[in-house]
Amino acid sequence: MNPIKRLTKEIVAFRNRRNWKQFHNPKDLSLSLVLEATEVMEHFQWKNKEEMDVYVKEHRTEISEELADVLYWVLLISNDLKIDIEKALDRKIQINNEKYPVKKSKGKHTKYNKL
Amino acid sequence: MNPIKRLTKEIVAFRNRRNWKQFHNPKDLSLSLVLEATEVMEHFQWKNKEEMDVYVKEHRTEISEELADVLYWVLLISNDLKIDIEKALDRKIQINNEKYPVKKSKGKHTKYNKL
Amino acid sequence: MNPIKRLTKEIVAFRNRRNWKQFHNPKDLSLSLVLEATEVMEHFQWKNKEEMDVYVKEHRTEISEELADVLYWVLLISNDLKIDIEKALDRKIQINNEKYPVKKSKGKHTKYNKL
Amino acid sequence: MNPIKRLTKEIVAFRNRRNWKQFHNPKDLSLSLVLEATEVMEHFQWKNKEEMDVYVKEHRTEISEELADVLYWVLLISNDLKIDIEKALDRKIQINNEKYPVKKSKGKHTKYNKL
Repeated sequence: MNPIKRLTKEIVAFRNRRNWKQFHNPKDLSLSLVLEATEVMEHFQWKNKEEMDVYVKEHRTEISEELADVLYWVLLISNDLKIDIEKALDRKIQINNEKYPVKKSKGKHTKYNKL
Repeated sequence: MNPIKRLTKEIVAFRNRRNWKQFHNPKDLSLSLVLEATEVMEHFQWKNKEEMDVYVKEHRTEISEELADVLYWVLLISNDLKIDIEKALDRKIQINNEKYPVKKSKGKHTKYNKL
Repeated sequence: MNPIKRLTKEIVAFRNRRNWKQFHNPKDLSLSLVLEATEVMEHFQWKNKEEMDVYVKEHRTEISEELADVLYWVLLISNDLKIDIEKALDRKIQINNEKYPVKKSKGKHTKYNKL
Repeated sequence: MNPIKRLTKEIVAFRNRRNWKQFHNPKDLSLSLVLEATEVMEHFQWKNKEEMDVYVKEHRTEISEELADVLYWVLLISNDLKIDIEKALDRKIQINNEKYPVKKSKGKHTKYNKL
């Protein structure tokens, strides 16, 4: 089964068993998304490249838990707002392809509006 | 094909064509993850429930683009750090099941460490 | 003595005694600023207005610690980037006055670019 | 006059003239704090140290505006939650002094709970 659909189903079932839908509105869901995203980022605070390499090897499980939390909220928000997230990302990749033409953006980290 | 794998492949190909791997380290990638998560959240700033309902109906496409951006970075970070994100989320759901037993957490938004 | 200058001095002295300047670059400093801001926000996750009122009364000290952390980084970043933050805020209030004319914005939470 | 008090007064007056208090609750205020903090951080995305140095020189005004926005919300939240932010930061510096003894933390970016 499509893992995006399967995981979404499990997350929604997890919520339903706890009767948590009543607390879930887009503001608090996206607030949770931000909190989990910052927990991923916190792992890399103050570290230089070499330190990050070592750190990732030693803390892959912890990092993957935080990253899984971010995906958790992406899927739940998509479910609640009736967003087909697979389609949305396909569409976004296409948009990025137009925003960042290979010729103009190759080897540069310039934002599209300054290219 | 598994959409998580397919989308990851496309994102990595998108990056390779632009020669952007050189700028990608866990710190800047997770910083991007946070920025996109806050762009989702910004949509709901100042709005009450009723206003959010109306807003979601009228701006589903814009919100889905921001949410797709978050998924984009989740997949790229997972790829770079050699994290199997599907497995990681399966594992996290199991952890959450233990952290939030139905009996204790039903109908309450209390954090696990205060249950 | 001007408290902004006094606090900045103390924060810089705190850092110097620990020889931490070597880790401080704008990216990691602003990353810390974001992390502390999200810790303020986390206090209000899932709560409705009534719950927040009660919560604030019972947790004012904890919230004020997180808020102090945000101010800490604002002052340290301002110091390092040679920004006069008092002047900058005076200027910003003036800009906001022009962006949000009372007549147009009174009683509305509309962003200036949609007024 | 104490600039923290003066600036707070001006910010509150700005709000009152627009009748915006009705939208201001701790959740949305702290959400705004986070959004502005990420706008500071966005300036440094993808840049290495040398690029940041050049960038800061050329964009000090823009950065200072975002940083002023963060201070804006710190002062308004402090006002609304009846927090004496100067006192809170004095207290926090003292706490940090105890959390990070010079002997143990000198020259290291280790978090206090791992020292």
